[in-house]
Amino acid sequence: MSTSADQRLHSEAAIIGEFFAPLCEGDEGAGGLSDDCAVLSPSPGTDLVITTDSLIEGVHFFPGDVPAFKALAVNVSDLIAKGAVPERYLLTIALPEAPTRAFMTRLADGLAQAQRAFSCRLVGGDTDRTPGPFTLTITAIGTLPAGSIVRRNTARPGDIIAVTGTIGDAGLGLALRRDLAGGASAGLARAQVDDLIARFDRPVPRIAAAALVRRYASAAMDISDGLAKDLGRLVAASGIGADVRLDAVPLSKAAHIMCAHGGVRRQDLIASGEDYEVLFTLPSERWAEALALAAECGVPVTQVGVMTQAAGVVWRDDEGKPVRLTTEGWDHF
Amino acid sequence: MSTSADQRLHSEAAIIGEFFAPLCEGDEGAGGLSDDCAVLSPSPGTDLVITTDSLIEGVHFFPGDVPAFKALAVNVSDLIAKGAVPERYLLTIALPEAPTRAFMTRLADGLAQAQRAFSCRLVGGDTDRTPGPFTLTITAIGTLPAGSIVRRNTARPGDIIAVTGTIGDAGLGLALRRDLAGGASAGLARAQVDDLIARFDRPVPRIAAAALVRRYASAAMDISDGLAKDLGRLVAASGIGADVRLDAVPLSKAAHIMCAHGGVRRQDLIASGEDYEVLFTLPSERWAEALALAAECGVPVTQVGVMTQAAGVVWRDDEGKPVRLTTEGWDHF
Repeated sequence: MSTSADQRLHSEAAIIGEFFAPLCEGDEGAGGLSDDCAVLSPSPGTDLVITTDSLIEGVHFFPGDVPAFKALAVNVSDLIAKGAVPERYLLTIALPEAPTRAFMTRLADGLAQAQRAFSCRLVGGDTDRTPGPFTLTITAIGTLPAGSIVRRNTARPGDIIAVTGTIGDAGLGLALRRDLAGGASAGLARAQVDDLIARFDRPVPRIAAAALVRRYASAAMDISDGLAKDLGRLVAASGIGADVRLDAVPLSKAAHIMCAHGGVRRQDLIASGEDYEVLFTLPSERWAEALALAAECGVPVTQVGVMTQAAGVVWRDDEGKPVRLTTEGWDHF
Repeated sequence: MSTSADQRLHSEAAIIGEFFAPLCEGDEGAGGLSDDCAVLSPSPGTDLVITTDSLIEGVHFFPGDVPAFKALAVNVSDLIAKGAVPERYLLTIALPEAPTRAFMTRLADGLAQAQRAFSCRLVGGDTDRTPGPFTLTITAIGTLPAGSIVRRNTARPGDIIAVTGTIGDAGLGLALRRDLAGGASAGLARAQVDDLIARFDRPVPRIAAAALVRRYASAAMDISDGLAKDLGRLVAASGIGADVRLDAVPLSKAAHIMCAHGGVRRQDLIASGEDYEVLFTLPSERWAEALALAAECGVPVTQVGVMTQAAGVVWRDDEGKPVRLTTEGWDHF
């Protein structure tokens, strides 16, 4: 058998056997990917949480990229924000041509790395040819104690609004992929540029945040279309309002530099997408306890505002004056 | 609000709210499709079975078709053949342009009809724009008593090989969609032509077969890429062989006519895809009992051969002589 990297694979069975079957090892329910279905046997007292997201070449990623790691990451992000721990996933790929062995190796390596990072396993999927762009669709399944899912529509007035990590880095990473010189001209070190780009190319949702959400959050969702837009959704779903401060939004050092020298505004950062951090609310009396668990789990959390009775989101500047946002968040559609 | 049929919908939220949210009604776990995840709370002693399949315009269906019913049906078919009863599904659609209200109505109506036919509900999904073709990806979830999934690799020598329904009709339907005149010239009535085309456009997997499979089958899978190819897969997975008779393969009256006057051979029919019937094996001593349950449930079943010790599939003609098949089954890839 030839193992040349540019050899093309023309059979779905060969692709599954060589590249995907190793990714289901140790999972009895996957049946070695040799059947049309996987079986899941949840423990008593456990709920399953399920989500699905597609990445389409030219829409969600640059032509030539093989965002296998990211495809799993964006789905895992949705599970974590509901308080669920990822366990298994299905992968559907549509390929514009018979893939080379080199391409399949990149794809499988990205998945293997994501599986290790997020402790989950491939259990099924579908492989098709398409006259359109390379597309990856993942359906991810997580678990949590029965009845403990955290929705986005259950925030209450007075709740603290918090986010994990830093906001806007992936948006800057996307801008740098389009204009690499923009980083150096704003005074970023090469490592900072690389970090920002990695936030876009290879987001790492915080698995440890699932426990934090489950234990303390009154409402939660992941930040995928920009903090401003996603907070607006949480607020609208909960039927109340929010009072938030732009200067409270946590930024990375690199983002601070871009704001100071790169012509980027804070409100651009809260409108940029793909953070894959968690936005959550919680009763103020539980904030200290939540901070302690967050510190213990290595999850940075920052308060950005409070939920209010009045409908709608009010963003304020550092003097407390309402700011009218001039940019909208990202809409994948 | 305009409700003109050719008005285009530019917002994912509007599409979900108007067309998809009604399809999750009554399912608490769907959260009204307003969250990123659905939650499943399986009853104790229940396993979940999960499968996913895509339909791509120009690959799996004709340009202009909106095969929403079929997209759910082909996934339900996989569940049934494992002995599982469908319950819920996620739908991911990729749209080449902002859809019209008329298009979304066709899509939602097809899903609603399939939901009624298969007793399952929409609980989540993803909606994207694509520079490529219209694509529907469904992930379907069914349930069965814990430990009762039926795999394809567990057939034993001596087992009877049976199929539900009739074989080859969808393949003929596909041929008739390409050349409608072929039906009349072979002597088919218009209603027969319509029936064959419906077998391709709107397959109806037999929900009642799930119980039959679960109770009696030693191995099972759905017939989606042609009986010949799929039997080859079941036999290979089980590591044994099969002895089957071409003249035992059940045909519809229309298929008989096409064989007599339309230049179609029986071996073309077992090589054509998309039957969405069930192929299963069972111990011969249970055959009479299985036939009785099948009759009770209104599921036609027919023996086509027996599993053998020797590896590989031997197809025989009506004199018992081995036949060398000259056509291969359909490979979606």
